[in-house]
Amino acid sequence: MTTIKDSVHDHIQVEGVAADLLDTPQVQRLRRIAQLGTVKLVYPSANHTRFEHSLGVYHLASRALEHLSIEGVQAERIRAAAMLHDIGHAPFSHNVEELLHRHTGLYHDDVEELIADTAVADVLADHGLDPDRVAGLIAGEGKYGQLVSGELDVDRMDYLVRDAHHTGVPYGTIDHERLVRELTFVGGELVLDEGNVQTAESLLVARALMNPTVYTHHVARISKAMLRRATERLLDAPDIDADVVRRMDDYDLVTALRMNDGTAEFARRYDSRDLYKRAVWAEYHDVPESVRSADPAELRDVEADVAESCELDANEVIVDVPAEPGMTESTSEVLVNGEVRRLEDQSPLVTALRTSQREQWRLGVYTVADATGRVGRAAAERLGLDIDGALVADVTPGVTATLDEFDGGAR
Amino acid sequence: MTTIKDSVHDHIQVEGVAADLLDTPQVQRLRRIAQLGTVKLVYPSANHTRFEHSLGVYHLASRALEHLSIEGVQAERIRAAAMLHDIGHAPFSHNVEELLHRHTGLYHDDVEELIADTAVADVLADHGLDPDRVAGLIAGEGKYGQLVSGELDVDRMDYLVRDAHHTGVPYGTIDHERLVRELTFVGGELVLDEGNVQTAESLLVARALMNPTVYTHHVARISKAMLRRATERLLDAPDIDADVVRRMDDYDLVTALRMNDGTAEFARRYDSRDLYKRAVWAEYHDVPESVRSADPAELRDVEADVAESCELDANEVIVDVPAEPGMTESTSEVLVNGEVRRLEDQSPLVTALRTSQREQWRLGVYTVADATGRVGRAAAERLGLDIDGALVADVTPGVTATLDEFDGGAR
Amino acid sequence: MTTIKDSVHDHIQVEGVAADLLDTPQVQRLRRIAQLGTVKLVYPSANHTRFEHSLGVYHLASRALEHLSIEGVQAERIRAAAMLHDIGHAPFSHNVEELLHRHTGLYHDDVEELIADTAVADVLADHGLDPDRVAGLIAGEGKYGQLVSGELDVDRMDYLVRDAHHTGVPYGTIDHERLVRELTFVGGELVLDEGNVQTAESLLVARALMNPTVYTHHVARISKAMLRRATERLLDAPDIDADVVRRMDDYDLVTALRMNDGTAEFARRYDSRDLYKRAVWAEYHDVPESVRSADPAELRDVEADVAESCELDANEVIVDVPAEPGMTESTSEVLVNGEVRRLEDQSPLVTALRTSQREQWRLGVYTVADATGRVGRAAAERLGLDIDGALVADVTPGVTATLDEFDGGAR
Amino acid sequence: MTTIKDSVHDHIQVEGVAADLLDTPQVQRLRRIAQLGTVKLVYPSANHTRFEHSLGVYHLASRALEHLSIEGVQAERIRAAAMLHDIGHAPFSHNVEELLHRHTGLYHDDVEELIADTAVADVLADHGLDPDRVAGLIAGEGKYGQLVSGELDVDRMDYLVRDAHHTGVPYGTIDHERLVRELTFVGGELVLDEGNVQTAESLLVARALMNPTVYTHHVARISKAMLRRATERLLDAPDIDADVVRRMDDYDLVTALRMNDGTAEFARRYDSRDLYKRAVWAEYHDVPESVRSADPAELRDVEADVAESCELDANEVIVDVPAEPGMTESTSEVLVNGEVRRLEDQSPLVTALRTSQREQWRLGVYTVADATGRVGRAAAERLGLDIDGALVADVTPGVTATLDEFDGGAR
Repeated sequence: MTTIKDSVHDHIQVEGVAADLLDTPQVQRLRRIAQLGTVKLVYPSANHTRFEHSLGVYHLASRALEHLSIEGVQAERIRAAAMLHDIGHAPFSHNVEELLHRHTGLYHDDVEELIADTAVADVLADHGLDPDRVAGLIAGEGKYGQLVSGELDVDRMDYLVRDAHHTGVPYGTIDHERLVRELTFVGGELVLDEGNVQTAESLLVARALMNPTVYTHHVARISKAMLRRATERLLDAPDIDADVVRRMDDYDLVTALRMNDGTAEFARRYDSRDLYKRAVWAEYHDVPESVRSADPAELRDVEADVAESCELDANEVIVDVPAEPGMTESTSEVLVNGEVRRLEDQSPLVTALRTSQREQWRLGVYTVADATGRVGRAAAERLGLDIDGALVADVTPGVTATLDEFDGGAR
Repeated sequence: MTTIKDSVHDHIQVEGVAADLLDTPQVQRLRRIAQLGTVKLVYPSANHTRFEHSLGVYHLASRALEHLSIEGVQAERIRAAAMLHDIGHAPFSHNVEELLHRHTGLYHDDVEELIADTAVADVLADHGLDPDRVAGLIAGEGKYGQLVSGELDVDRMDYLVRDAHHTGVPYGTIDHERLVRELTFVGGELVLDEGNVQTAESLLVARALMNPTVYTHHVARISKAMLRRATERLLDAPDIDADVVRRMDDYDLVTALRMNDGTAEFARRYDSRDLYKRAVWAEYHDVPESVRSADPAELRDVEADVAESCELDANEVIVDVPAEPGMTESTSEVLVNGEVRRLEDQSPLVTALRTSQREQWRLGVYTVADATGRVGRAAAERLGLDIDGALVADVTPGVTATLDEFDGGAR
Repeated sequence: MTTIKDSVHDHIQVEGVAADLLDTPQVQRLRRIAQLGTVKLVYPSANHTRFEHSLGVYHLASRALEHLSIEGVQAERIRAAAMLHDIGHAPFSHNVEELLHRHTGLYHDDVEELIADTAVADVLADHGLDPDRVAGLIAGEGKYGQLVSGELDVDRMDYLVRDAHHTGVPYGTIDHERLVRELTFVGGELVLDEGNVQTAESLLVARALMNPTVYTHHVARISKAMLRRATERLLDAPDIDADVVRRMDDYDLVTALRMNDGTAEFARRYDSRDLYKRAVWAEYHDVPESVRSADPAELRDVEADVAESCELDANEVIVDVPAEPGMTESTSEVLVNGEVRRLEDQSPLVTALRTSQREQWRLGVYTVADATGRVGRAAAERLGLDIDGALVADVTPGVTATLDEFDGGAR
Repeated sequence: MTTIKDSVHDHIQVEGVAADLLDTPQVQRLRRIAQLGTVKLVYPSANHTRFEHSLGVYHLASRALEHLSIEGVQAERIRAAAMLHDIGHAPFSHNVEELLHRHTGLYHDDVEELIADTAVADVLADHGLDPDRVAGLIAGEGKYGQLVSGELDVDRMDYLVRDAHHTGVPYGTIDHERLVRELTFVGGELVLDEGNVQTAESLLVARALMNPTVYTHHVARISKAMLRRATERLLDAPDIDADVVRRMDDYDLVTALRMNDGTAEFARRYDSRDLYKRAVWAEYHDVPESVRSADPAELRDVEADVAESCELDANEVIVDVPAEPGMTESTSEVLVNGEVRRLEDQSPLVTALRTSQREQWRLGVYTVADATGRVGRAAAERLGLDIDGALVADVTPGVTATLDEFDGGAR
C-alpha cells in the first residue's frame, strides 16, 4: 500500500493492482502530459498533469465503490480502469487527438493495444484481471463502464475540481464528495439518488461555465490550433510516424518541433508565447452550414487560398471550426419520487445549457499579428461568412473589446 | 484605520466614516444576528453573523469604488451605506421579517429612522454625510444605490461566497474578485464590462443552486416557520411590541420565547432541535391559485380548522406558503459588442433558472412527528390540493426518500 | 445514519450511539456555546460553536479508530466520548471555567453527573454502554482516554484546524489527516509512527503560534476578564447559583447579565464592544513571584485598593494574572528507530516553545479608557512591579505601538 | 495592463515594465522550469513553475511597495527585479545549480549578463531602467535588495505558500498578507513592525517544517542526486557545454539525457520513476568531519571505489553529502518596544530551529535496489562511518520503517 499526498484530495491510498500499475512506464509517462494542454498559456498555474488526475480518478472510484458496496474482482477491475483510463493520451492531451485519430484511427480511450502489449499487461495478469475487460471499462462499456466513462463518471468529477484548483477559476468547484456518495445503480443504470436534482445540475453547470472560461478560452484555442498545425507539419517529415507521436510525451513533442525545420518557427512561437491573433471570430448563425461541416482537407484548401491571396506562408493562416454544439446530449439520470428520470426532463437548465453552447460556438481564423485585417476580409469572403455579423478584425468598430469576450479574466 | 482579519476576504482595512460606524451599538448589534437564521439547524457550521457580512460588503464596496474610480464624499456615502445596509435586520435576519412588516410596516432596508435617531446619525454628521442620502443608497435609490442594493450589488457577492464558506456547500463560490473588477457604469446603469456573460451567469447560477440547497432547505423552512409562529404568539402577549422585537437581537428573542408561557414549548423545540415534520409537501401546479395567494389570516383559519379536526393544539399545525416564484425578475445587464444588453436576452440560462424556481416551489404543512398522517389528509382536503400529486406524509409510498428531496446532504 | 455537512471536514457520517446522542438536549445545547468565547470580539468570523467542534472530534475519532483497527463496543464507547467530550462546558467555553470551578468544584471535563442523570444516560443504556467508562474516557483515563484527551488527541486536531478556518489565521492549519493516519499504540501508549517527528512538531508549533495570536490575544483577554468579573457579580445576586450558570448557554448568560442591575453596565459594554483598555502590561520577570501566585481573593483586594485610590468603581479595575507558563509539559511521543521517544528529547523545538511561553506571559491591569494612566501607576505600585520594565499606559513613550504587540493583525 | 489569474493570489495585475518583461523569451522560458525540480516525484501535484512563482513574487512586491509608499522609478526597478529574479535558473531549478556553478562560476542570481544581452535589456531601456541596478537588486544589494532577496523577502513568502498549495502540505501556509503589510524600513533595514514576533517566527517555522517534509524529502534528494550525476555525465560529452545546459529548459535537459548514450539509463529511470534506494542514511555526528567537508572530486573517488568493490557501474553508487547545516544564520529583524531587535535574540525558537537543522542532516548513499546491502557496508567502511549509528540498509533491523523517516506521507 502506498499513500500519496494530493493537493486536491489530500491523502490518496493506493492499493492492490493500482499500486503495481502506478509503477509501469505507461502510467508514469502521464507525469509529462499536461492535463489541459495549452491552457497553461492562459492560466499560468494550470501545469497539472494526467498523472495526478489519474490518481484522483482512482481515488474517487475507490470511494464510489465503497459507497456502492462493490467488492472483489469487479472492484479491482474498476480501480485498474480508473488508474489506466488516460494512458492512451497523446502529448498535450486532447490538443492533437483529432489529428492523430485521422492517422491512426485511435482516440485516447482506445487502449486495448496499450494494455495488452506492455508492462501493464503483466501487472493485470499478476492480479488475475482480464485486459480486455479493463479496456472495455475505459471505453465505457457495460454497467460499470458508466462509473469510469459516462455522464456521471468520476473522471469528470475529478477534472472539474482539479482544473478549478489549478487554474484558480472557481466554477468547477463541485461538491464531488456528495456526488460520489449519492451514486446508485437502478436497473443497471448509474443514477443519482433521491434529492439530487441540484447535485446533478451543479455538475452540468460547472462544466458549462468552465467551457468558455477555461477549456475553449480563445487563447487556448489559438495556441491549440497552432500546436495542431505544427504537429501536422511534423507528420509531413519522412521519418516521423503518427503512432510514434501518439506515444510521445510533452517533452518529446516540443523538442521534436524545435528540431524540425518545418516546425521550428511554431516551436519558437510556443516557447515565447508569441501567438497568432484572431482575424475572424464568427457566430454560429453567421457561418454557412457547408463550412461548419467541411472536412479538414477542405479547410486546408481555404487556408492555402487565403494565405496566398494575402501573400503569407501557408502556415500563417489557420481556420478553426469547432464541432457542432450540443452533439453530446446529456443523459444524466436522477431518482425522483422513486422513478428514474432523465435530468433533461426534470431540469429546464439542461436544455438551456445546450442552447448556450450554440451561442458560445465561434469559428475562428487566426494569423500573424500584423495581417489580421487583410486575412479577416479574405477569409470572410472565401468562407461566405455573413460579413456584418462575423467579427472581422479591423473592420468592426470596438473590436478589441469584443474580441476579449469569453476571456476569463486572464491572458 | 483599523485592520480586521476576516475568514473570507482576509485583511479588511476599515477607514474614515466606516471605522467610526463600526463602533456604534447599531452595527455591533449585528454580531448577534445570525446571517442565515435557522439554517444553522441544517448546516451546523453556518453560525456567521450580519456583522462579518457587513464588513465583507464594506470591503467589496471599497474595492468596487477603487475600480470605478469613485472618490470623495460620494465614495464615503457608499462606504457608509455598505457598512450600515443591514442594521435594520430583526433577530434571525429574514426569518420573521414578513411577520414584523405586517405589524410595523418596515422591512430590513427601511432604516431612515435608525440612521436618523441613533449614534449612527452623530457619526454621519461628524463626517458631513447626509443621513437621508445614505438611507436612500441602502434602499437602492439612484445610480449608486445599484452598488449597494441591486442585481449586481456587492451584498450578494459577499453573501454567496460567505455562505458557501460557512455552510461548506461549494455552489456559492463565485469569482467575486472578477465581478468587482468588471463592474462599470454605462449611461447611469451598473453593468458588467465586455466579456462577462459567463461571469454574470455564474452569479445567477450560484444563487439558483444555493436556494434549494441552503436557503430554502426544507428543514430551514420548517424551523423558520416554527420561529415565526412562536414570534407571532409572543406578539400576542400584552407587554411585547413589534417595534421592540424588531430591535432585539437573537439572544433577546430566544430568551423571550423561553420565558413566555405561550412560546416556551417552541423555545424548547428550537433549543433541542426537536422540529415538526412535513405532513404535506405539494408542488406548484397541485395547489389552487386561491391558496397560493391566501393572506395570513386565511391561512391561520386553515391551521386552526385542521388542528381542531385532528385534536391538536393550534400551534401544532403550520401551513407554509412561499411567495409566488419568479416575481423578482433578473435585470442584470452586460456589455456585449459595445451595447448594454439585458442578460436575460443574452443568456438562455436566465429564463431556465426562472422556470426552475417554479419547479422547486413547494407548499408545506408541518406538524408534530406522530400526527403527520392525519394532518396531511385533513390539510390536503381543507386546502383543496390535488391529492395524487401532493405528497401527503403517510399516504404516498416511498415517501421517506421523496421527502428528502432538496436535502443538501445535511440534516 | 445521518450525514452532516461540515465546513471543515466536509461530510461527516454519524452512526450508532453518536447519532442518538446528537439529538439529546445536552449535545444540542452546544450549538449555543461559542467555541472561543470572546475571541469573536477580535476575529469577527470566529462564531463557531462547541457543537460543530464536537462533530469534528467525533469524525476524527472515527477515522482514527479505523486506522487503529479498533472496533466493537470499545470503539462505540470512544465515539460516544468524542461526541460528549464538551457537554460539560459552561457558557463562553473556558472564559468563566475557573470561576465556576471555585464555586462548583467542577471543570468542563467533569461530566459524570451530566452523563448519568440526563437523556444522555438513556441513550448510552440503549446502546449497552457504561456511563462511567465514557466519562472516564472524557477525563483522559486509560489507554483509550489518550485519544479523546491527551497530547495527541483528536480534540486538539479539530480545534486547531477549525479555529484557523473560522478566524482566518492560518497558523492552526495542521495536516490533521496525516496525524490521524499515523497514530499507533505501542505498549499502551498512543504515539506517532516512524517518520513523524515533523508531524508532531507541527502540532505543537501550530498551538504555540495560535496562542498569542488568537487564544490569548490581549483583546480576548480583556473581554474575557470583563465577562468573568460580570459573572462574579452575577453570582453575588441572591437567586443565582453557580450550578445554574454552569448549565446556561451563551444566550442565557448574556441575557442574565443584561437584566441584573449589578451587571447591566458590563452587558452594555460587551454588547457594544466598549472594552476596558490596558493600564499595565507586564512581563514575567517584572512581576514578583508573590503576585504571580496570588489567589483570587488577594487580587480582588488589590483591585479594590487601586479602584479606591483612583476614585473608580470596584468593577472598573481588573487585575488579570495568567497561570504560570509551561506547567503543562508536553508528553507527546514518537517512534524513532523502533523506539518510543519523548518528542521533547528528540526535538529542540519543544523546549524552545516552552521558553517562548514564558516570554509571552503578561500580567494585565485593565480599566476604563480615560483612567489607564492613573490606574497604571497605582497598580504598578500596589503590585510591586518593576516600573521600568512593566508597561504602564501613559508613562512609557511609544506605548500605543507597544501595546499592540501580539495583536494578531485584528481588532 | 494585463490581469492574470493565479491559483494562489487570484487576480494579478501586471503593469508598466513588468508587463513588457512578461513577453520576453527569458521570462517565458520559466514556464518550463519546474519550481521544485524532482520534488514532483514525491508530490505529484507539485508541477508548478518558476513562471507562476515569478508572477507571485512580482505581485507581493507590488503590494509591499504600496504599503511602504515607495513609488516612481525606484518602485519600477524593484518590480522589474521581482519579475526577473529567477531568470538565471538552470533546468530543474536548484537541482543542478551547484554542479553548473563549478563549471560556469554562476549561481541562479548571477543575472547581469542575462539582463544585459537579451530582449530584457531592451525592455529595461524602453522604461529608462539601469540593467546593473536591477541585477544588483536581484543579488540582494542595497536597501531595497532586501525586499527581493533577504530574510524577509517576498520571494520566500510566495514560494512557501505556493509550494504548500501545490504539494498539499499545509506547513507553508503562512499569513503572507500580514507579512507584506507589516514590513517597514528602520534606518535602512527592512524589519517587521511592532507586534510581529509571531509573524516572524511563523515564517521561519514554515520553512523549517517544509524543509524535511518537502524540499529535502529523501526521495527528492535521491532523484536530485541522480539527475545531478546524469547531468555530470552529459557534460562529459564532447559537444555539450555547461553554459548551454544552464540556459536549457526542463524539456531540453530531459530530452538531451534521453538521447545521450551515457545518460540514457538515467533518463529511463527518471521517466519511469525507477529510483535508487538508500544504502546508507547517516546522522551528523556519525559522519567524520573530513567526509562532511570533502570536495566533489574526493566523493567521486569514494563512489568509484565502492562501485568497484561491489562490482557495479560507477554511475550506480552516489554519495550525497548536504552542506553543513545552520550556515545561513537568520538575520530577521523585528521592532519590539520601539527598538529593532534581531529575531534571534527575541525568540528562543530561532536557535531551536537551527539545532533542528543539524538533527535532520543526513548523509546518503544511494544505489540500485538489489545492492543496498553490500553498498551500504562498503560505503560505511570506506567513509569511516560509525557503523552502529549510521543506518546501513540490510544491517539494521527494522530498517524499512526507519528509512521512511522524513517521508512526508508521500511516495
